[in-house]
Amino acid sequence: MTKTKVYLLDFGSLVMDGYMMFWGRGPGGPFRFPTYGVLIDHAEGRFLFDTGYDGGFFAKNLPFVTIDQSARQTVPGQLDLIGLRPRDITHVLNSHYHVDHVGGNHHCTHATTICHKCELEAYDDPEPWEAMGYSDRSLSGASGADDVSDRADDIYTPRFELISGDARIAKGVTLFETPGHTPGHYSLMVELADRRPMLFTGDACYTQRSLEENIIANSHSDVKQSFASLERLRQLAEQHDAELFYSHDPARWAEWKPAPYHYS
Amino acid sequence: MTKTKVYLLDFGSLVMDGYMMFWGRGPGGPFRFPTYGVLIDHAEGRFLFDTGYDGGFFAKNLPFVTIDQSARQTVPGQLDLIGLRPRDITHVLNSHYHVDHVGGNHHCTHATTICHKCELEAYDDPEPWEAMGYSDRSLSGASGADDVSDRADDIYTPRFELISGDARIAKGVTLFETPGHTPGHYSLMVELADRRPMLFTGDACYTQRSLEENIIANSHSDVKQSFASLERLRQLAEQHDAELFYSHDPARWAEWKPAPYHYS
Repeated sequence: MTKTKVYLLDFGSLVMDGYMMFWGRGPGGPFRFPTYGVLIDHAEGRFLFDTGYDGGFFAKNLPFVTIDQSARQTVPGQLDLIGLRPRDITHVLNSHYHVDHVGGNHHCTHATTICHKCELEAYDDPEPWEAMGYSDRSLSGASGADDVSDRADDIYTPRFELISGDARIAKGVTLFETPGHTPGHYSLMVELADRRPMLFTGDACYTQRSLEENIIANSHSDVKQSFASLERLRQLAEQHDAELFYSHDPARWAEWKPAPYHYS
Repeated sequence: MTKTKVYLLDFGSLVMDGYMMFWGRGPGGPFRFPTYGVLIDHAEGRFLFDTGYDGGFFAKNLPFVTIDQSARQTVPGQLDLIGLRPRDITHVLNSHYHVDHVGGNHHCTHATTICHKCELEAYDDPEPWEAMGYSDRSLSGASGADDVSDRADDIYTPRFELISGDARIAKGVTLFETPGHTPGHYSLMVELADRRPMLFTGDACYTQRSLEENIIANSHSDVKQSFASLERLRQLAEQHDAELFYSHDPARWAEWKPAPYHYS
């Protein structure tokens, strides 16, 4: 049986104010951070966890955000580095449905999308203050149909599978509920043959500093859930002796090895 | 019967980053804002709603906050403008127990303190991320006794009255629950003989912009409650044709008339 391989896919960077990264703590000023996805090449499928942002969408709809993304820093561009095409992705998983995590989903035209049911609800009917975070509507398809079944023929990623709770996706591939940043947020753990498990926090923990100084993302749906999820990540890392991979940590990102390198 | 009079007591200003004032919106950079209290000179008592911050406490414990407060901008200094002393205050009400709203409570040595029970709980046992907001412990007395009854002999304001729900405090003086900034937050409405009711938002709404653009304080215990309380304030103002007095709005503050002027 093939060993599971994990690739970090570089999807470019964004810039936000430090107060937007570190709730109530800052410091203020421009903070550039990476966005990336995780490809899990596995005996049971090719799973892609998070797909970055769509540069065209940002340029058109969120022009006040500074973006930096080359053609290579997209789902097709990154997969090409390892000889794959978007149609080779069997499953798209997303930590959550914010614009900088789902922007490349639409490339994966042959994938099943696995989604927390609370996250799809939040995306479909966001609170007014969440609307910008969920503004990339490319998951909704052209018709804007209201429910998943109606939408099934329209969306780029044609099959939705709604789940809740912690979920084993494949052998050694587990989603853990870490809500608070958004209502249906997942973190992902991947167990590998020759190294410690990799625990991808998603936006439940932007950076190593966030974990060490107990700082949540400025953007959150629930304060207490957010802090509880930070604590859950600490405990998961300890229980499983897992290495933490933060979602938007420029310093740690610079030390990790992006595709075509793989972890196994 | 004496007409009810309302005095706005100037307690000086503070400076925070704009992202701390306007959650997720900013803009960043220093934002100077007023802190003030409301004296209600009423047939049933002299009620003081919020007491500003203690300059000495800030200088010692929160030296990174820029303060600007003269000796005149304190409870004794402001009351002196209208010929009163702190011992003349019969009741202290607080929108909530954050450091910039309770700093002068300890001057009111003859007052009963009326407090939302959820707010005293939050103050007594704050979440770690709330500890700085509740760090002025001058309500706790020297012994640090744990519960209200034990503490009754120690605290500067010697009598606590714990309440919950909307509460009529005196004729035409009503506290309305507006939680979200903190768990037990109150806004205050005062009905007067010769003018529209005055609705003091407390930190449920920092500024007029906050109301108009639907922006909550960066500091909050619950996101959804915070937005619901903003909406409640809009509805209360409309139902009662009340004028809104925001807690930290430099532009509106400059237009209002502080003590010794009174509204009646």
